[in-house]
Amino acid sequence: MSKHFQRDMDRLNQELLSISSMVEEMIDKATLALSERRYDLADQVVGSDPFVDQHEVHVEEECLKMLALHQPVAVDLRRIATVMKVNNDLERIADLAVSIAQRAQAMDAFPAFPIPEQLPRMVVLATQMVRGAMDAFVNMDATAARRIMAMDTSVDQLNRDVIAVLETLMQKRPEAVPAAVHCFSAVRHIERIADHATNIAEDVVYLVEGDIVRHKHAHSSGAAP
Amino acid sequence: MSKHFQRDMDRLNQELLSISSMVEEMIDKATLALSERRYDLADQVVGSDPFVDQHEVHVEEECLKMLALHQPVAVDLRRIATVMKVNNDLERIADLAVSIAQRAQAMDAFPAFPIPEQLPRMVVLATQMVRGAMDAFVNMDATAARRIMAMDTSVDQLNRDVIAVLETLMQKRPEAVPAAVHCFSAVRHIERIADHATNIAEDVVYLVEGDIVRHKHAHSSGAAP
Repeated sequence: MSKHFQRDMDRLNQELLSISSMVEEMIDKATLALSERRYDLADQVVGSDPFVDQHEVHVEEECLKMLALHQPVAVDLRRIATVMKVNNDLERIADLAVSIAQRAQAMDAFPAFPIPEQLPRMVVLATQMVRGAMDAFVNMDATAARRIMAMDTSVDQLNRDVIAVLETLMQKRPEAVPAAVHCFSAVRHIERIADHATNIAEDVVYLVEGDIVRHKHAHSSGAAP
Repeated sequence: MSKHFQRDMDRLNQELLSISSMVEEMIDKATLALSERRYDLADQVVGSDPFVDQHEVHVEEECLKMLALHQPVAVDLRRIATVMKVNNDLERIADLAVSIAQRAQAMDAFPAFPIPEQLPRMVVLATQMVRGAMDAFVNMDATAARRIMAMDTSVDQLNRDVIAVLETLMQKRPEAVPAAVHCFSAVRHIERIADHATNIAEDVVYLVEGDIVRHKHAHSSGAAP
């Protein structure tokens, strides 16, 4: 790897990490907006999305420039391809944070709604997965990446628990159905954030070990409603 | 563009179109499984997923080979980058079809459930969007791509209608809540399929016109629960 290529790669990694920090903050704020009815935070999340979008476009342009300029092969080429995928996952995580914030805004129309107690734990895990997957990527650490992939099982279990709580609530209190449906959507968005973090971790394992794990690890989307 | 590059590109496009056909068939079968309780079809959908996964991995490898071999620049480079993104979207659409099939399987445990009448129309539109976006991509037709993007509004409206029907049903018949929650998830998966088709169409516009529309067109995920 040439010195110039390495320098450009380091710069890309730095930008990805800074996008990741923004995205993690968006997830935190969006879920606080949901659980503590902090609708000012929901507005902030929606307002930050364009910045993430700009970064995503910039990273993609930089990747194309690096491909044209350095014409990398083998692992360097694969690394840039992975940056493009990770970049895409981060942008979709930001979109999901915006969707959670919008659910929080929509719930404003309904009386106080009991957010299931497992939800904050689910958010903490999903955010840790995003951060951990990004660290594994930057450090090219396949062991750490596999640890992140394993965390998805806990998120899936919490997802099932939260859905069971919401179903019982809807059966007992029909008037709470619309708010519960918004909450249900928000929970699914959190679960999908964990899935995107898993995608990133799978890409890291492939990059480091050449082992395609992304289609071996059963994704969770089908595990619960 | 060299003759060799063009030949490899044509081959890639053919493979993408054949993945797209498989994926469209998976969507059809998964939603028939849901609406007509054809659980044999659900099994078929789950069984086809590994084939799509293999194709996805193959297309990505071919893209990397083409980058290393032809070292394309400018529009050729952007075209390969777009193939990688479209490939990724198709694979995620296949995953969503699997998720719909799994919802159909889960609904088997419940008594007959009235599927909202707007759902088949929503599926037809989403499938047309996938097919249309792929055609627009292969033909590099930005006008067709913009037409596909515009269809997303109709899918969003149907999505809202279906959710309203499901909410009313859950409020009137608490015993139907678990099945309705599965149906709700399936509907969201259909809506996300339309979103992925929109992503593909947006990438086509960018490829042809250089205009980044993917962050201007408001995505629908926040429009309804």
